[in-house]
Amino acid sequence: MDVYEALYTTRAMRRVRPDPIPPEVQARILDAAVRAPSGGNAQNWRFVLVDDPAARSALGPLYRQCIDQLWATIYKARVESARADPDLPESRATLAMVASVEHAADHFAGYPLFLFAFHRGDTTGGSIYPAVWSAMLAARAEGVGSSLTTVLAFKGDAVPDLLGVPRDQGWKMAACVPLGYPTGAWGVARRRPAHEVAYRNSWGAPVGFEINQPLWPSQD
Amino acid sequence: MDVYEALYTTRAMRRVRPDPIPPEVQARILDAAVRAPSGGNAQNWRFVLVDDPAARSALGPLYRQCIDQLWATIYKARVESARADPDLPESRATLAMVASVEHAADHFAGYPLFLFAFHRGDTTGGSIYPAVWSAMLAARAEGVGSSLTTVLAFKGDAVPDLLGVPRDQGWKMAACVPLGYPTGAWGVARRRPAHEVAYRNSWGAPVGFEINQPLWPSQD
Repeated sequence: MDVYEALYTTRAMRRVRPDPIPPEVQARILDAAVRAPSGGNAQNWRFVLVDDPAARSALGPLYRQCIDQLWATIYKARVESARADPDLPESRATLAMVASVEHAADHFAGYPLFLFAFHRGDTTGGSIYPAVWSAMLAARAEGVGSSLTTVLAFKGDAVPDLLGVPRDQGWKMAACVPLGYPTGAWGVARRRPAHEVAYRNSWGAPVGFEINQPLWPSQD
Repeated sequence: MDVYEALYTTRAMRRVRPDPIPPEVQARILDAAVRAPSGGNAQNWRFVLVDDPAARSALGPLYRQCIDQLWATIYKARVESARADPDLPESRATLAMVASVEHAADHFAGYPLFLFAFHRGDTTGGSIYPAVWSAMLAARAEGVGSSLTTVLAFKGDAVPDLLGVPRDQGWKMAACVPLGYPTGAWGVARRRPAHEVAYRNSWGAPVGFEINQPLWPSQD
């Protein structure tokens, strides 16, 4: 797969089939992940793949509680605003996101595989999220859907303790990536155009080009 | 370019030519970056491309001071240990990294382009570093080398103020990515094998496979 196809079409895929992901596919995902950069190439990362039914069943209610907390706090105003005026484009996007996340919360134990990423001594996240994103891009190349969630941190140490993480050694959970073969189609994620979020040399100054439709696939 | 080639060969490339990076290449890099995920698809990110000679000249001494501080603090023990026993494989790797970063510090104003990434309200980094890494992968596909540095944060508000960032609106600098056409060859980054940093279902449990050489390029 072309790198641009992966970069443009790796969007959150939360509706997946229960089919297992073969070990050789898991290996290609992890081997790609560890090629990512980390500060000073320190590679202070650990990954835990979870496919055990008992562990997956334990994760389900934890994720549900975190999502309920998310709707009741951080996203409360945004979701209420979207429900009050559901036909606005940004309301539609919010409500589609809510429906997708609710599907995940209703079926969390049904993901055949989870990738958990842990880091140590990384104060910015700059030494772990490139590896997490590489794993998701490699999964895309393998036809495996993924999404990235950090909300399980709402449950404090519950997930690290479930997975036996030696917290006294400084390991912290950075992300949970549920994985599975998607039921839906891949597509280019809708985003605010780059020239609206980019400047040149000084904040607010035009970046010098306009990009009014995605540059991939090529229009040539 | 195949996505795996990009994932395996996008390593820090700090030795670059002064040649400018064409605007259409910059546009492809930024348009790929904004396809990355962000929490709730909030896209609370801004990017500043810096190619102005005066701004680049101002960045040079700031980066030099940050690197000197890095060697004198976080990396002090590691570098001293490497110099004391320079023939060990891990010492060689450390000293090669030091030489590469010193080259960057000696020639910082010579990078033809910098990409600065800013975020707002992202407590983990999970909503900005995927976009930064996507930019670096797209740059790789365009033949443009990059590296990721967060050390300019040592200078506090100096860089945000240089770029006119409205800090009172909550925007924080996440990364600086110097860009340029590399003088050297692309190669697969050396990493600790994935099975040594990955477990299955429980911390410390074997992940179930061994990967004794990079899975890309394919050995078939």
